[in-house]
Amino acid sequence: MAQEIERKFLTVSEEWKKKVVRATTMKQGYLSSDPAGNTVRVRIAGEAAYLTIKGRSEGFTRPEFEYSIPVEDAYDMIELCKKPLVEKTRYLVSEFGKTWEVDVFDGANEGLVVAEIELESEGEEFTLPGWAGKEVSSDPRYYNSSLIGNPFSRWR
Amino acid sequence: MAQEIERKFLTVSEEWKKKVVRATTMKQGYLSSDPAGNTVRVRIAGEAAYLTIKGRSEGFTRPEFEYSIPVEDAYDMIELCKKPLVEKTRYLVSEFGKTWEVDVFDGANEGLVVAEIELESEGEEFTLPGWAGKEVSSDPRYYNSSLIGNPFSRWR
Repeated sequence: MAQEIERKFLTVSEEWKKKVVRATTMKQGYLSSDPAGNTVRVRIAGEAAYLTIKGRSEGFTRPEFEYSIPVEDAYDMIELCKKPLVEKTRYLVSEFGKTWEVDVFDGANEGLVVAEIELESEGEEFTLPGWAGKEVSSDPRYYNSSLIGNPFSRWR
Repeated sequence: MAQEIERKFLTVSEEWKKKVVRATTMKQGYLSSDPAGNTVRVRIAGEAAYLTIKGRSEGFTRPEFEYSIPVEDAYDMIELCKKPLVEKTRYLVSEFGKTWEVDVFDGANEGLVVAEIELESEGEEFTLPGWAGKEVSSDPRYYNSSLIGNPFSRWR
């Protein structure tokens, strides 16, 4: 089964900005988001759009299926999603031979910055950059699908 | 927005069998099925597979988006769906210049037969064949997504 193995960290500085290789503006919504079940995400990323199904997490691993879809469909489908949408800019950051995704959130989640790394296996070793802080991989509040119902602006 | 306009009837005889032009075995599950919201369906139909998103119904109309996906993905995704799955054989039936879809259900929904017709507009006129009985378009029990949680075998 196709799967995503991912670890997620908060940031403690903006040093990652020196290693950015690309930035993409993203807007995404959830057609369905049960933290204990499947999520179905519609994402508009720059000029492209994707429909992504994720199953339930076990450890750092989730089943994941992603399909490219017409952008016009995505704009229509995002109308069917719960609001607020998740808006962010994703920066690809190259560190120690790995590509990190640093998401800087906007809108209702402004102020939140999360760095993710995709791994080949749960036990894969990797170098944690100095700008990466606390791990939040297992904290459901940081699931993008949770940031719809409970946006970062309401946490404090 | 892409949409489906559909009316649905029970059958009162098997006369439709004389007009069958094709039969396809289908197995489908729902990654998400909120009768008041969006449904996300995975369908394996013969050698093909589809991922279908439907929004909330208004009258006989629902937003609908359908994508062809690899059959192997569909078999994996169906594992993530609530059980029992919906199993049926779909017969395409040609009557009065229109194609009807007659679904003969199997498994937990054995005994249920539903005939559907897709229309171009809500007000479109069409000839109701003699084998078509009570209309059930607006009865949520007959939504395929409802037949998972409340299969036909438990109705009586």
